[in-house]
Amino acid sequence: MNRVHVIGAAGYAGAETVRLLRRHPHFSLETIESNSGAGEPLADTFAFWRDDDRRFDEPGTGLATLQPGDAVILAGRSGEARETAPKVLAAGARAIDLSDDFRLAEHAGAAVYGFTERYRAAIAHAQLVANPGCYPTSTLLALTPLAPFAGEIVQIVIDAKSGITGAGRNPATASLFAEVDENVRPYGLQGHRHEREIGQELAAAGIAAPFLFTPHVVPLRRGMLTDAYAIFASAPPADAIHAAFRRAYGGSPFVRVLPEERAPSMAAVAYTNDAELNVSVKGNVVRVLSAIDNLGKGAAGQAIQNLNVMYGLPEETALDDLAIAR
Amino acid sequence: MNRVHVIGAAGYAGAETVRLLRRHPHFSLETIESNSGAGEPLADTFAFWRDDDRRFDEPGTGLATLQPGDAVILAGRSGEARETAPKVLAAGARAIDLSDDFRLAEHAGAAVYGFTERYRAAIAHAQLVANPGCYPTSTLLALTPLAPFAGEIVQIVIDAKSGITGAGRNPATASLFAEVDENVRPYGLQGHRHEREIGQELAAAGIAAPFLFTPHVVPLRRGMLTDAYAIFASAPPADAIHAAFRRAYGGSPFVRVLPEERAPSMAAVAYTNDAELNVSVKGNVVRVLSAIDNLGKGAAGQAIQNLNVMYGLPEETALDDLAIAR
Amino acid sequence: MNRVHVIGAAGYAGAETVRLLRRHPHFSLETIESNSGAGEPLADTFAFWRDDDRRFDEPGTGLATLQPGDAVILAGRSGEARETAPKVLAAGARAIDLSDDFRLAEHAGAAVYGFTERYRAAIAHAQLVANPGCYPTSTLLALTPLAPFAGEIVQIVIDAKSGITGAGRNPATASLFAEVDENVRPYGLQGHRHEREIGQELAAAGIAAPFLFTPHVVPLRRGMLTDAYAIFASAPPADAIHAAFRRAYGGSPFVRVLPEERAPSMAAVAYTNDAELNVSVKGNVVRVLSAIDNLGKGAAGQAIQNLNVMYGLPEETALDDLAIAR
Amino acid sequence: MNRVHVIGAAGYAGAETVRLLRRHPHFSLETIESNSGAGEPLADTFAFWRDDDRRFDEPGTGLATLQPGDAVILAGRSGEARETAPKVLAAGARAIDLSDDFRLAEHAGAAVYGFTERYRAAIAHAQLVANPGCYPTSTLLALTPLAPFAGEIVQIVIDAKSGITGAGRNPATASLFAEVDENVRPYGLQGHRHEREIGQELAAAGIAAPFLFTPHVVPLRRGMLTDAYAIFASAPPADAIHAAFRRAYGGSPFVRVLPEERAPSMAAVAYTNDAELNVSVKGNVVRVLSAIDNLGKGAAGQAIQNLNVMYGLPEETALDDLAIAR
Repeated sequence: MNRVHVIGAAGYAGAETVRLLRRHPHFSLETIESNSGAGEPLADTFAFWRDDDRRFDEPGTGLATLQPGDAVILAGRSGEARETAPKVLAAGARAIDLSDDFRLAEHAGAAVYGFTERYRAAIAHAQLVANPGCYPTSTLLALTPLAPFAGEIVQIVIDAKSGITGAGRNPATASLFAEVDENVRPYGLQGHRHEREIGQELAAAGIAAPFLFTPHVVPLRRGMLTDAYAIFASAPPADAIHAAFRRAYGGSPFVRVLPEERAPSMAAVAYTNDAELNVSVKGNVVRVLSAIDNLGKGAAGQAIQNLNVMYGLPEETALDDLAIAR
Repeated sequence: MNRVHVIGAAGYAGAETVRLLRRHPHFSLETIESNSGAGEPLADTFAFWRDDDRRFDEPGTGLATLQPGDAVILAGRSGEARETAPKVLAAGARAIDLSDDFRLAEHAGAAVYGFTERYRAAIAHAQLVANPGCYPTSTLLALTPLAPFAGEIVQIVIDAKSGITGAGRNPATASLFAEVDENVRPYGLQGHRHEREIGQELAAAGIAAPFLFTPHVVPLRRGMLTDAYAIFASAPPADAIHAAFRRAYGGSPFVRVLPEERAPSMAAVAYTNDAELNVSVKGNVVRVLSAIDNLGKGAAGQAIQNLNVMYGLPEETALDDLAIAR
Repeated sequence: MNRVHVIGAAGYAGAETVRLLRRHPHFSLETIESNSGAGEPLADTFAFWRDDDRRFDEPGTGLATLQPGDAVILAGRSGEARETAPKVLAAGARAIDLSDDFRLAEHAGAAVYGFTERYRAAIAHAQLVANPGCYPTSTLLALTPLAPFAGEIVQIVIDAKSGITGAGRNPATASLFAEVDENVRPYGLQGHRHEREIGQELAAAGIAAPFLFTPHVVPLRRGMLTDAYAIFASAPPADAIHAAFRRAYGGSPFVRVLPEERAPSMAAVAYTNDAELNVSVKGNVVRVLSAIDNLGKGAAGQAIQNLNVMYGLPEETALDDLAIAR
Repeated sequence: MNRVHVIGAAGYAGAETVRLLRRHPHFSLETIESNSGAGEPLADTFAFWRDDDRRFDEPGTGLATLQPGDAVILAGRSGEARETAPKVLAAGARAIDLSDDFRLAEHAGAAVYGFTERYRAAIAHAQLVANPGCYPTSTLLALTPLAPFAGEIVQIVIDAKSGITGAGRNPATASLFAEVDENVRPYGLQGHRHEREIGQELAAAGIAAPFLFTPHVVPLRRGMLTDAYAIFASAPPADAIHAAFRRAYGGSPFVRVLPEERAPSMAAVAYTNDAELNVSVKGNVVRVLSAIDNLGKGAAGQAIQNLNVMYGLPEETALDDLAIAR
């Protein structure tokens, strides 16, 4: 039994992390820490913790009670982990950061980028993991298997649709029910902060073609669907493309490459760490549809997946929730 | 052509007021004032004002440009109208306040309570109208026609369901999409600020029975359905009840008393100033279902209705929008 | 390891039953049968079964392969179980019927009414269980603890709000997204088929006061909130009421009686078999708010709870899913 | 005052047509005809017609009462208009068909394709107008202004998001609330029936580049957002692109080309005949975001716009509804 601390636990990604850890057979939840919720009953914030009187710990509790070998999930706002993570490492504990503080190479230091399907080996030995963003995760799942054909790609178009929990639990007018409901809102039309993360990791995979990324908020809570279009001068044969995806995800328990006639569905991955891909060649375009739960494989689920890898546990541990029927 | 100023225009009730006034044939929109939006393009806030470059006026513009005979709609937060309204009146203008600043008799001063169906005559001559809350409006529409039978009522139960725009456009965690969606949330279980307003007006109508009021937030933007149950020692005959409702609303263009087999529907009144009532006698209970749009008859619509009455215009002026099919 | 068959598995309650059974440690899913889906891949209907090629069995498969000691969940339409259940029993198997075929005493025969919290002992030995409806379940959870005070109740008012999955998966115009969205729809205003079931079980508990039941569809998938108001000539002391609820649910792992200041929430019980109650005395009214998942404790969850009781397993087996954070 | 008949009035597009015509100052609604609703009160189907007892006319009423010069809106299912339209024309009346019966050149006969912004002159004299589909309308609004640069386009990618009313009011499992809610569903992955219509009209505009069209259902009632990406070998200068859009829509009252930093919004066009476009050049991609209401400019709104053109009325007549604030 290992000890784990969640810092920034009242946000949506933090809450989902706590939910997954509450049933994790190999970790005990030592600290559940929140700036905004400190001292309040968990039951007032967590729908899944209504059965006892436990309260949010005060800020600082995790660091104060840290022991060597502990795990810390940093789920606070951008900038906070740059202060906290070094202290965690100094105490001999290991950390996974859900913010973008360590994702870009120029800030990463010794952090390993936590795209599990690609960096498993390095993650296993990492002291600090920079957990990927939801848009990068769904995009990289869709595009990195195309690396063998990268030289022929002339342009990439990424059209992504995200549930509103991706915007976090901070009160903001744009996230109000009355603003989100009955609307689809494209945003970041003049540049989105996730573009550099996507670009870095596509390049790391050897894909250097220019890409255009357009994110949209859709009126639902959890889910992300990314339609990735790779435009070729002359598209590779469909067989070769399908084979590349089979190779890429053969050993990955969470990635389902669907038969071409079956559409991926947000509903089929919601509340899980699963991803669904649909791959087809349409003239000179390779189209890949990629569905994840933005709080699952796009945040907390992948964090637990990385935690399992770091501690030598089977990757699926505590991640076997079934999707909800309806 | 009269002049009208809207102060606090960026909130949901303020916005709906501006929308209705934009097409009002007898009023010109002189001031569209907002603390939070000052200087910003209306197009960024108002879905219905994307076609020109007009911007929100600075706070104070309305008062500074006021002329005798002008109308002012006060749609700001609680407490603001107590400061502003006296200045409006001093300038010879007339005001309608959408907050609860002047609704309770102890604070009302010369204000007239703006439940149009009951106080038309007084509203016509009022300098200051206290526009009712949405919960009181839907409740009073349901219950005040029972006044002739008030002595026999032993208990009233009011179970109200409201869309989230009733909570306003201020960013609050409880109003976020991810909190409201897929949930019904009862609140105010230990007392709700609208109870005193309801009690005052039931008493004014001669209904002194104790009442219990339970509000709920439902996952939609606009609409309010109030199920009002009057428990009698021995219920009056159904004919007498139905006759009382016909008498009460015979001259009221916005209130539809439905045949007993037809259910009221939020969808049938959404985006209008209409109300729908379904009245039946079930054993010793008279049940009245009352549907309004919380921003229509429950706020901005009733404000324009009152404005029309104050300025001697037909009550329906600018309030003839049709409900949306679907 | 026992064998279980689900007949009528493609509907919403059937699907949720299959989801719960897929991970049940003591049952193997022998038959997954559907009239409408026969021969189709489960993956096309079940979001939680996308990982293999299993298909719906043909109608009749369950009966044809039945063995003594097997369990059968009947989740088909009204009327079907009256034909199927006798054959199940004749084969030495035991059945739980989710329809209303055996709920009313006049049709029940040897069936036991499956309100687990009240009839545990009889359910343990039943060959056939009539699983309660969702409205009766939430209502009985709210009201049966008041039995000791029943003589003083003069009227009961039940105002229930249900997610649309309660209407089933049969295509019906009234269940279309565009009809349900942005609306609250009261229905059954002139009588609802669940009233007799509620009346029968209130009477069985000794509560004979007249009741008025008004159901509403709210725009969400899963959840039911019932506001039950018991009007007394003179209400009992709050202490006595609270004590009665503690007594009623002391040994019931799925029922949480909340502190008076905490509101029940559909979100806190969604996707679980839990129920939340808030009880308070307001003048002469005892108000009980009762939240369940209409497909959980209101259907499939309670069916599995009953299955566990019938087979001598801990009541919580396979029912320990956590609610979803958001 | 002209006479108008609506056939197939109970569907979503038919209903919206009736709503718009109810207030049209130059047309009287002679027939409101429905197969499924015949004889039923309009009030049971139309949220906007709760105030009188008018009922749906029987099938055949429109044809039986037709007079020369009348207008007929055909809003029935695919295939019906091929039977009805010739009879309408034979009676000396003029017709607008909302189905796809006459859209493709091979079936069009004398029908004029009703994309108003492009074919105004021909529509003015048409006896039969084939009203465009919603996907083609939003796509053509986005792409046809690029015709002057068509020779340089190497590939077009069209990623479209539609509200569920586009699927019609026929009960279908895939359109149920519980299926659509909390999901985004790509469909037609192996070909969609609107592709030929899009291809025909792009070709008619001189745009021959290959295109890939991917439609998605999003969980809302009304709205369509199409992200159209034109990939160039070398993109034209942004100034030239913007100038082309200004030229294309200079005289079109319903099309707003937004400043580049303002995102189009489904909410800003919902319940109107408006369209919003955002145009930008991103490397070698010209990206055009196009928002309409699928039942507005995508169906009933454009039908009324065409009706106005056919009868020599100002194009905006009866189409001046304001979008809803929230």
